[in-house]
Amino acid sequence: MHTPQAISNFSGGPGALAPIVLQKASQALLALPETGISVLGMSHRSDWFRQLLDQAENNIRTLLDVPSHYHVLFLQGGGSLQFNMIAMNFARGQGTRADYLQTGYWSAKAVDAVRAQTQVHLAWNGANSGYARLPKSEEMSWSARPSYVHYVDNETVEGLEFNRVAGLVDAPLMCDMSSNLMSRPVDVSAYDLIYAHAQKNLGPAGVTVVIVKDDLVQTANAGLPAVLDYRTHIKARSIYNTPPVFAIYVLKEVTQWLLDDVGGLEKMAAINQQKSQLLYRTLDELSDFYKPHAQREDRSRMNCTFDLVNQKLLKQWLTQAQDQQLWGLEGHRSLGGIRASLYNAVSLQDVQKLSQFLKNFAQENA
Amino acid sequence: MHTPQAISNFSGGPGALAPIVLQKASQALLALPETGISVLGMSHRSDWFRQLLDQAENNIRTLLDVPSHYHVLFLQGGGSLQFNMIAMNFARGQGTRADYLQTGYWSAKAVDAVRAQTQVHLAWNGANSGYARLPKSEEMSWSARPSYVHYVDNETVEGLEFNRVAGLVDAPLMCDMSSNLMSRPVDVSAYDLIYAHAQKNLGPAGVTVVIVKDDLVQTANAGLPAVLDYRTHIKARSIYNTPPVFAIYVLKEVTQWLLDDVGGLEKMAAINQQKSQLLYRTLDELSDFYKPHAQREDRSRMNCTFDLVNQKLLKQWLTQAQDQQLWGLEGHRSLGGIRASLYNAVSLQDVQKLSQFLKNFAQENA
Repeated sequence: MHTPQAISNFSGGPGALAPIVLQKASQALLALPETGISVLGMSHRSDWFRQLLDQAENNIRTLLDVPSHYHVLFLQGGGSLQFNMIAMNFARGQGTRADYLQTGYWSAKAVDAVRAQTQVHLAWNGANSGYARLPKSEEMSWSARPSYVHYVDNETVEGLEFNRVAGLVDAPLMCDMSSNLMSRPVDVSAYDLIYAHAQKNLGPAGVTVVIVKDDLVQTANAGLPAVLDYRTHIKARSIYNTPPVFAIYVLKEVTQWLLDDVGGLEKMAAINQQKSQLLYRTLDELSDFYKPHAQREDRSRMNCTFDLVNQKLLKQWLTQAQDQQLWGLEGHRSLGGIRASLYNAVSLQDVQKLSQFLKNFAQENA
Repeated sequence: MHTPQAISNFSGGPGALAPIVLQKASQALLALPETGISVLGMSHRSDWFRQLLDQAENNIRTLLDVPSHYHVLFLQGGGSLQFNMIAMNFARGQGTRADYLQTGYWSAKAVDAVRAQTQVHLAWNGANSGYARLPKSEEMSWSARPSYVHYVDNETVEGLEFNRVAGLVDAPLMCDMSSNLMSRPVDVSAYDLIYAHAQKNLGPAGVTVVIVKDDLVQTANAGLPAVLDYRTHIKARSIYNTPPVFAIYVLKEVTQWLLDDVGGLEKMAAINQQKSQLLYRTLDELSDFYKPHAQREDRSRMNCTFDLVNQKLLKQWLTQAQDQQLWGLEGHRSLGGIRASLYNAVSLQDVQKLSQFLKNFAQENA
């Protein structure tokens, strides 16, 4: 049998998950300890699943200290469907516009996705600067009364991450935290709607967490297809239609691991800080050899993007990394270069191995 | 460790899966033999996943003999999202209507789901007859030129199943085969669009298979959100956004099991025939004691619904069944009574156990 621990998985997503979670899930596929049958054969209308869903929700509420006037939902369709559900539910028709920060690949996708549904105003657009930095507060130019504001808290492709709440206008604030939710504490009350697909820090691809303020939901547009209306899922407590049972099961185990093994998000944040600092420090020390993409103050703790000064060595670098069990390091196809994703389940040891490899490779090819 | 084989799972869905599939999936969660890392940590942009997706598609094409001018897609959102995607893509606006057969709980849900999107004409409505039978061809009254026709091939709640292609008008034919696709051969060319969520005969909840004719797709409405437009997913070959990697992995293993272990859909159909015949025969022989819901010629091979003549014994029946490791037999909350779902992975032995229990219980309580 292969030992998964031998490989360090720096994939941009779906990302690595903690070994203890994988072991529990592996057992649950054969037979759940509580029921004796496979988790894949459990009805979503069973008491077992209702308890699982409640536990998953409670874990999220505990970890993020979610106020009671926010709903926690488990949906399908990923971030891409959220792009459109937000516009369907909260864009306000003729004469109104929604404000977006366009800070990278994913926020640009969000903007493209909704253009048929609402007029969009870009309060900032980083395209011309190659998405190498985030806007300062004074650079953002908001509409007078946008129907809502949308931004992406962490751009996985370019490796940019906000270290503050970015929307400052008097409008509902929607935030895509797909790639950094659960990596640090969040002041949920600063947002009206937060969403995150699971496949970075939460679990397997196929389930999306939405945390939405009750006040906001009460204002959703009428006449929507039920399955695309947040109110439907709130009323049905996430089982309007069959939910992705297995993905939610794993998400519950991941949040349990964060609570019981890691000890909460303050501790997770400290570990993540240590990991990314080590990696960026290594790159900065070898600046003759490696070239980080993001401007220093906007560097993502989750996705570290860089290139080789001598790009001709890139292929060799990637091949040697893979040979040394350092996986998933190829940059996103839109940016090229190298991307090391340091999601929660990537350990400090994994990053130490990568850091050592960065040094060795630089030395050998100096 | 619990042995899943000891329990017979007659759940209405998510349903049982073959033990060999569960074993492979359990191992894959720890480490895929091909890559050494967990299936949950595999990137959907990897060669491994592209091959997996191709293999899953090829298996479906082989099993169902899908003509080459049909696309095979793997989507999220279940049957409920398909209800609306069909209307969004193919309903034709003012003055037009779409024809639906309302034959039970699920087709009624489909009708409700799209009322805001299109005018609906019910070519038949079985509500008044308690959804105890399907319409005969001469009972269906079609519109002159509906934008499309929609029906549900197998009603899981009531246990009704078509044994023929039902739409006979010159209009695109959309069919929900969520609960019986892969249980028997299908003449795909008779339909324009077939969809099925996975959690009955295909795999875990969280992935939905759509088989759609290229001619039809070319006529889809303009201006749709990309993620809700079939053309987006065809162009992106099902990885427009991150797909549910694990659910597709299991689906591939299920279709592989159908091909290699079962030997194809003719053989699967023969086994399913044997299973349902045994169960219905047992019920018919004990007609003083048990009361099948569906009219004989419309009985579903997948979901056998019945009640006790003496309904006071129902609770006792369900408790004793559970004690004897016969699981998931409670009827859907909308109909009550008993439902035995006989999806592909339910074995003839499982049905023999159930049949014996039916006899014993009747004798003991005569």
